[in-house]
Amino acid sequence: MSVRNVDSFIAEPVSAGRETTRQVLIGPDVGPNFALRRFIMQPGGGMPLHTNEVEHEQYVLRGSAKVQIGDAVHHVKAGDVVFIPGGVPHSYDADAGAEPFEFLCIVPNRPDQVKIVGC
Amino acid sequence: MSVRNVDSFIAEPVSAGRETTRQVLIGPDVGPNFALRRFIMQPGGGMPLHTNEVEHEQYVLRGSAKVQIGDAVHHVKAGDVVFIPGGVPHSYDADAGAEPFEFLCIVPNRPDQVKIVGC
Repeated sequence: MSVRNVDSFIAEPVSAGRETTRQVLIGPDVGPNFALRRFIMQPGGGMPLHTNEVEHEQYVLRGSAKVQIGDAVHHVKAGDVVFIPGGVPHSYDADAGAEPFEFLCIVPNRPDQVKIVGC
Repeated sequence: MSVRNVDSFIAEPVSAGRETTRQVLIGPDVGPNFALRRFIMQPGGGMPLHTNEVEHEQYVLRGSAKVQIGDAVHHVKAGDVVFIPGGVPHSYDADAGAEPFEFLCIVPNRPDQVKIVGC
């Protein structure tokens, strides 16, 4: 692929999430070093506190949410840039309301494991 | 940084571009593997045909442009996902009109050289 609209990619439910889907926009089959994904969380949806082995570089496209990173809780909104280092517990709680919380999330092409904190 | 709004980052002019600025949102000082940047091209602005050594993974945030990648010319708009492999000539011509052409561009943290095609 060289150019493709975001809405043409399959959205798969995220098993650990609530009302959350993920689209792989540029995966390891295309990009040699990192993957570009879009997450959509419906109002009230989100993901519980968890860790990944890899870092996340994120850009919020739409909506707003409470995002915990380590011990800090942030209220993030469209246009916010978010960095989550590998191994740091983080969670998402999309604000209730009319608008979904949508963000891009870039990760390196390395094996990763999601661990829910407390499980 | 963990959360910061995109409009708070310095926008630097891109020397090879026309009416084009670049913001480094997450640079190699923060992200260990890849850098997240935002480019803004004013209507009628752009960049001439050039190559980079590294690949680009891009997401169009706003506006529209004519983007040449290799021999193909695409008309891209907000919500389009663009992949440009390393070494492939590419150019940007933002559409004339009221709206700037804005996109995110992610590159690996590796040395890169921009070569203008024909120079």
